[in-house]
Amino acid sequence: MAGKVALNFNLIEAAATQLKGHARVTPLLNSPFLDDIAGRRVWVKAECLQHTGSFKFRGGWSAVSALTGEGGVLAYSSGNHAQGVAAAAKAHGRAAVIVMPSDAPAIKLANTRALGADVVTYDRTTENREEIGAALAKGRDLTLIRPYDEPQVIAGQGTVGLEIAQQTAEAEVDSGEVLVCCGGGGLTSGIALALAEAAPSFRVRPVEPAGFDDVARSLEAGKIEHNATLGGSICDSIVTPQPGDITFPIMKKLCDSGLVVTDEEALRAVAAAFQRLKIVVEPGGAVALAAALYHGSEIEGDDVVVVATGGNVDPAIFATAISTYGDGR
Amino acid sequence: MAGKVALNFNLIEAAATQLKGHARVTPLLNSPFLDDIAGRRVWVKAECLQHTGSFKFRGGWSAVSALTGEGGVLAYSSGNHAQGVAAAAKAHGRAAVIVMPSDAPAIKLANTRALGADVVTYDRTTENREEIGAALAKGRDLTLIRPYDEPQVIAGQGTVGLEIAQQTAEAEVDSGEVLVCCGGGGLTSGIALALAEAAPSFRVRPVEPAGFDDVARSLEAGKIEHNATLGGSICDSIVTPQPGDITFPIMKKLCDSGLVVTDEEALRAVAAAFQRLKIVVEPGGAVALAAALYHGSEIEGDDVVVVATGGNVDPAIFATAISTYGDGR
Repeated sequence: MAGKVALNFNLIEAAATQLKGHARVTPLLNSPFLDDIAGRRVWVKAECLQHTGSFKFRGGWSAVSALTGEGGVLAYSSGNHAQGVAAAAKAHGRAAVIVMPSDAPAIKLANTRALGADVVTYDRTTENREEIGAALAKGRDLTLIRPYDEPQVIAGQGTVGLEIAQQTAEAEVDSGEVLVCCGGGGLTSGIALALAEAAPSFRVRPVEPAGFDDVARSLEAGKIEHNATLGGSICDSIVTPQPGDITFPIMKKLCDSGLVVTDEEALRAVAAAFQRLKIVVEPGGAVALAAALYHGSEIEGDDVVVVATGGNVDPAIFATAISTYGDGR
Repeated sequence: MAGKVALNFNLIEAAATQLKGHARVTPLLNSPFLDDIAGRRVWVKAECLQHTGSFKFRGGWSAVSALTGEGGVLAYSSGNHAQGVAAAAKAHGRAAVIVMPSDAPAIKLANTRALGADVVTYDRTTENREEIGAALAKGRDLTLIRPYDEPQVIAGQGTVGLEIAQQTAEAEVDSGEVLVCCGGGGLTSGIALALAEAAPSFRVRPVEPAGFDDVARSLEAGKIEHNATLGGSICDSIVTPQPGDITFPIMKKLCDSGLVVTDEEALRAVAAAFQRLKIVVEPGGAVALAAALYHGSEIEGDDVVVVATGGNVDPAIFATAISTYGDGR
């Protein structure tokens, strides 16, 4: 599908129309306790409350609803994109084949299957998921839905930006930084495109875990940089090899510099969201909140908006986070 | 304040006007995985996402905003009512004195103080909180805000019912049972009053933990029954001695029979809400969801609405619940 449509504000508005009544308008939450930690007002866009537990449902729905013909869809994902695409395909009556690493969390494999998808596993140390996906698509009438480098997906994720523009206006917040947990950049670039038109006084910045800061380094270098390794982060849901070919130019044009947080800061943010907002956020979905809470000196303005991107976290990891940092600071 | 205003649908609508822009319109969440467990569609009104982490903020705000003069407020509470009243009083620039048991969770004591309240502790095995409250009110210009037997408080809680009426209509759900976690009956009677007018095809039923089912027994007997003991439940936030003198006649007239769940079922519902909805619910706030998931044979209809009343749970209890029942079933 890539390249067949123009990726612009109109495409995001069209995605919003497609999503209306299907995706949740997630709440923009706040707490005086978080404001105290951050030293400014913190607004949390709770995308963990989205269907399938992450914003990925938006891009999946947007891409699936744009399909013509009768064919199915194909996606490769370690979990959140898989569930988003599977749920969207099921609702549209289309087959879904999802290529997932064999060591993905059991709950994510089980959920994706329970959403009706045909899950094909691969060994991520020896096999290439793009090659597997391409081979599967050739043998069947399947359209590949890339997790981020895909205009319809970016447009779907961009609807988060439209909601941020509306909800901040309702809260009488007229400017600030918008921090986005960033993997391949689909959500970040989508929000940046949306806000450039709908609320241009906000500045969008990607946030990544330390050691996997390819986007921050790419923005600084002005060209695409890679991560040295892809394993070992507790923020697995947002670790990607490099920014996308479509997403990076958008981020380069529209985003400000990236922020980087430690795994410990991400876990502390998980506990703070548990204690102060009563939402379940996975570590990779908490890095933006972590930046707002613990990197205040790198942020400007009286208000900061953070996207809590997902909540598909292993119970053991969540239990450890809240037990270790349970005072919510 | 009790008795000075007529407790009816108009008072609930007036409370909704007072709360507009201050209380959150909490989302009505659902998940196909919960529907599978329950054998019908389950709609979860996520009041744990309310300010101060429980629906109690609504009643507190309603009562405080109805005050005249310059005086402060007094409340006795083990936690959720305390925080709701303290936050409402602070926003209105009024002093708040809150009488709390000395063995209340440290986090609830700390939060109530952090919200600006003057917290007075008492020993719940040897002292009577009502007597302490009455004595404190005499010495200062304080108005007592009762946790449930108070028309303005019931009206504030009843705004949950107005939102359920609107949100179920938007979801095209036109009838069903509405299960409410029930302590003294303020929320249950408020919702029942609201729905009797706004969506009379819904049936309201209180849900309580086993061993503390005073409301269910009172409804069955047609007169107020007491709990034999007040200690030892993991659902501490909804354990009260007996239904209220104001709330019971309303529930007797408008509610159907009560449901009773075990502590284990409540903890399993906590884990299911974590896994499937990404919300943090305290055990006492999860008994209605537990009834929907595990007592399906006692419920009628294709749809059931449950109120997840609060999320102020000790991290250790939550960690135990999700570690023990982490598969979300």
